[in-house]
Amino acid sequence: MVDEADFIARLRAIATHPAARGLDDDAAVLTVGSETLVMTHDTLVEGVHVLPEQDPADIAWKLVAVNLSDLAAKGAEPLGILLSHMLGAGDDRFVEGLHEVLDRYDVPLLGGDTVASPGPRVWGLTAIGRATHAPVPSRAGARVGDAIFVSGTLGAALAGFEAVRDGSDGDSAAYRRPVPLLADGQALAPLVTAMMDISDGLLLDARRMAEASGRTFAIDTRSVPIALPEDRREEALRWGDDYQLLFTAPESAELPVPAHRIGTVRSAGGHPLLLDGEPPEPGDTLGYEHRAPR
Amino acid sequence: MVDEADFIARLRAIATHPAARGLDDDAAVLTVGSETLVMTHDTLVEGVHVLPEQDPADIAWKLVAVNLSDLAAKGAEPLGILLSHMLGAGDDRFVEGLHEVLDRYDVPLLGGDTVASPGPRVWGLTAIGRATHAPVPSRAGARVGDAIFVSGTLGAALAGFEAVRDGSDGDSAAYRRPVPLLADGQALAPLVTAMMDISDGLLLDARRMAEASGRTFAIDTRSVPIALPEDRREEALRWGDDYQLLFTAPESAELPVPAHRIGTVRSAGGHPLLLDGEPPEPGDTLGYEHRAPR
Repeated sequence: MVDEADFIARLRAIATHPAARGLDDDAAVLTVGSETLVMTHDTLVEGVHVLPEQDPADIAWKLVAVNLSDLAAKGAEPLGILLSHMLGAGDDRFVEGLHEVLDRYDVPLLGGDTVASPGPRVWGLTAIGRATHAPVPSRAGARVGDAIFVSGTLGAALAGFEAVRDGSDGDSAAYRRPVPLLADGQALAPLVTAMMDISDGLLLDARRMAEASGRTFAIDTRSVPIALPEDRREEALRWGDDYQLLFTAPESAELPVPAHRIGTVRSAGGHPLLLDGEPPEPGDTLGYEHRAPR
Repeated sequence: MVDEADFIARLRAIATHPAARGLDDDAAVLTVGSETLVMTHDTLVEGVHVLPEQDPADIAWKLVAVNLSDLAAKGAEPLGILLSHMLGAGDDRFVEGLHEVLDRYDVPLLGGDTVASPGPRVWGLTAIGRATHAPVPSRAGARVGDAIFVSGTLGAALAGFEAVRDGSDGDSAAYRRPVPLLADGQALAPLVTAMMDISDGLLLDARRMAEASGRTFAIDTRSVPIALPEDRREEALRWGDDYQLLFTAPESAELPVPAHRIGTVRSAGGHPLLLDGEPPEPGDTLGYEHRAPR
């Protein structure tokens, strides 16, 4: 049996076209004639990525939003989506949520497939966009001396997840209905040196960007804005699903959108991350690579 | 609970963008700048669309080939694919088959997603192509007096399916490794009035094309080339998975590829199909809309 890392390594050996970006970015970036397409696909599995008790309308919203967030991270404007849907309970609600999210972001449903299966439900979504700025931001462009920014607060999705899980009346919107930062991504694309969306936790995704860029990211953890009490800061930095943008830019850049500076890019050192001057503790996973459910 | 037909009807109400073609064609057709993109997504479920005992290399081949066949039916040239993969046994063979089929048709792997689930395995694939001829053929353009053609023999996939199912040493390649007729589709696109690939059985797909075109298709069933003994003709006309092209063209058209004339387009009558002059028997499903496994 091939494990996930090995499987992806084997795929990477096939994915040699530059548009695939080594399967190491949020999206594929393909030039066709005079256009640059940005394409991404995410799959959600019931019990793994979504809670079985969730409203199917929220599942549809999230399925679309997480893919649009990948387009946002590349500064792309959405052109449309293809949906792979597995039939089951609550499909009327699913269509309602789908309609809401597509309407909200003005994205057309272009096609897809509908299947049935006796197993846990699985949904797939492909989003296609067009780049609004060339070169399209990657994870790999951070330069020594750049400032590191995050677009907004982290931890709101964790609080929302807990509210859904516990059936409490806390605000769960950040978890149920994440907001893809399309306008921010398009405004930032011309001046960032690297950009990605934070889906798996700030620290894990920052490490990925640092590794892709061949740099060390020195992060001042106390400067990261969080939506949780201070005693939960460490969790807020490691939980995902907030879909804020993480990006680097020259210190002198005049940012067109509000953002929080959280650190500085340094030349590669012993570890791709420095947290308040120290490398992470051994065994710190930094985020959620394989959690279930999330 | 919403059934499949009702679910798709609800999606259709959302999919109002012309690129979606009413969710009623083999692929979406989207104009972006000076390019016309052709996009399709198919999902395969273990136990429903593929046999659990199949070689994963053949599953990967089929997953890619059925999507490329949809591009072929629109005369499109493939630009790349996005893969949604569920981890499981035989993943090394899966990657080998994927590599083979992408290499064979010179199609780059651009991205996708890898997930795990305790349930039956599910694979999704999105293929993106560019149109080689405008307008891009649809299912809806057949005109009264046009000749109806099929690109090759039907029933070879059925024979192959039986060989796999029974573990016999019969030739199973047509079922295991279908061939997307990309060159044929591109050659035909400029002169057909309607075109689609035959995935669910000739007669069912011919009825769909007749309905989309608002015509009656009069088919001479004995003129259809089959790869099975004559006493299995009725099955060969109703079994799918052969991925031949079904198309209509003016009688005077000089076809650039070999094809078999199987009938004539007539104005709409009482039934969208006439088989040797008679409408199909009541209860004849004409093909396999919901078979499992297939």
